[in-house]
Amino acid sequence: METILSTQNNRVKEWEKLKTKKGRKKTGLYLIEGRHLVTEVLQSDAITDYIVSTQEELDAISFDISEDKLVIVSDKVADRLSDTVTAQGIFAVVQIPNKQRQIQDPIPDEKGSWLFLDNIQDPGNIGTMVRTADAADFAGVVFGKGTADVFNPKVQRAMQGSQFHIRLVLGNLDEWTQSFKQAKIPVYGTELNPQAKNYQTIEKADDFALIMGNEGNGMSPELLTQTTANLYIPIKGKAESLNVAVAAGVLMFSLKDI
Amino acid sequence: METILSTQNNRVKEWEKLKTKKGRKKTGLYLIEGRHLVTEVLQSDAITDYIVSTQEELDAISFDISEDKLVIVSDKVADRLSDTVTAQGIFAVVQIPNKQRQIQDPIPDEKGSWLFLDNIQDPGNIGTMVRTADAADFAGVVFGKGTADVFNPKVQRAMQGSQFHIRLVLGNLDEWTQSFKQAKIPVYGTELNPQAKNYQTIEKADDFALIMGNEGNGMSPELLTQTTANLYIPIKGKAESLNVAVAAGVLMFSLKDI
Repeated sequence: METILSTQNNRVKEWEKLKTKKGRKKTGLYLIEGRHLVTEVLQSDAITDYIVSTQEELDAISFDISEDKLVIVSDKVADRLSDTVTAQGIFAVVQIPNKQRQIQDPIPDEKGSWLFLDNIQDPGNIGTMVRTADAADFAGVVFGKGTADVFNPKVQRAMQGSQFHIRLVLGNLDEWTQSFKQAKIPVYGTELNPQAKNYQTIEKADDFALIMGNEGNGMSPELLTQTTANLYIPIKGKAESLNVAVAAGVLMFSLKDI
Repeated sequence: METILSTQNNRVKEWEKLKTKKGRKKTGLYLIEGRHLVTEVLQSDAITDYIVSTQEELDAISFDISEDKLVIVSDKVADRLSDTVTAQGIFAVVQIPNKQRQIQDPIPDEKGSWLFLDNIQDPGNIGTMVRTADAADFAGVVFGKGTADVFNPKVQRAMQGSQFHIRLVLGNLDEWTQSFKQAKIPVYGTELNPQAKNYQTIEKADDFALIMGNEGNGMSPELLTQTTANLYIPIKGKAESLNVAVAAGVLMFSLKDI
């Protein structure tokens, strides 16, 4: 068991770089923070290189981890590694699985319900949608072009453990859409357009994909032309739109046969 | 038209205090920020005392406002008044309507759909729920005990203009619940309890109230005993819960006859 007290320590500097996409790409590692996520990662298939923790936080919890993977740090180091205003004092340095490092081909005849994220930028929205997809028993979420990085610390935090429950893949949404349609699985786009199909007219099902688009601009116009149908949530009041994570929640629970 | 360049100016210091509940209570004023909200407030019934803006921001937009209500400020003053990392450069100092300063009695035979917020603490969640209630054509939202202040700048920002579209009142939720039930209008509580009633079994309606509870602890146990029924959203995956604003969205669009 090692102890690091200085924020100038080289390993601390390396771990801090995992907050950036460049740092994660270079090392193939990512950082998660907080008791809940660290507990979940240790129960998952993910390979954890180190648990980095303050002594105080370590004393408060108990888990099986070999001593050579444990690094005790000062509060200052924890603050440096933290992505939040109040550091939670415990972190895991985790290996990004090989298959999550690259764009993944669609799987022929993919079953279950899938959420496709097209250019979604807010980490909180992404995390909330993954969490909702988990709660609605979706099979997985495909992170399309322009969508914030799965391993961004803010995205990881917002997913609240659901990243260890359902499949998260990087994908080309055009290809995934084509593949689903070839397998006769419907792919529903979404648009803020009263001319689109009212989502309430779609029968509940188990196998389908739902595409959510960018917070400000919606789905890419090209992708909109490739779907089975594009859905609309009727807005009856004076609000201009729904938050994308709320809209996704309404649609997932309406479309999915639960 | 007045110009203020120094953050040490007394009026700037006074406006800055409007970010706190104490400051708002003392003056009966609140502060909103950004082009969208300022435009909405000027079109609403609210009484705006001042528009405070940088020259740059003022040049970029146009609206009717008498010169004696306009105060031009420096970027530094705008940064000081701002609640965001990047100040939007335009603010309105607005009077809190008398009736929104105090707990409001329930209105007998209140019609329409209402959202009751029981001890909801995150400004983003509150704002998103108000915005969703607006989109679902709800009549209003009652801010119950423990719920963050309506005039908190973060709450105002997250509501994105919906605060000017639907009624927002402070209320004692026990009294509002009793009043609705006496008028034979159902009041639905919510709980994370599979023994509660599946929300999908409730027929769509126009007149009802839906209560959402605290992010971590749910609704107050006492209030749960007073409702017509308590609803549950079945969680089929491994997520422990839904985000409260997502759950509210699923329920509002499912219960409301739209």
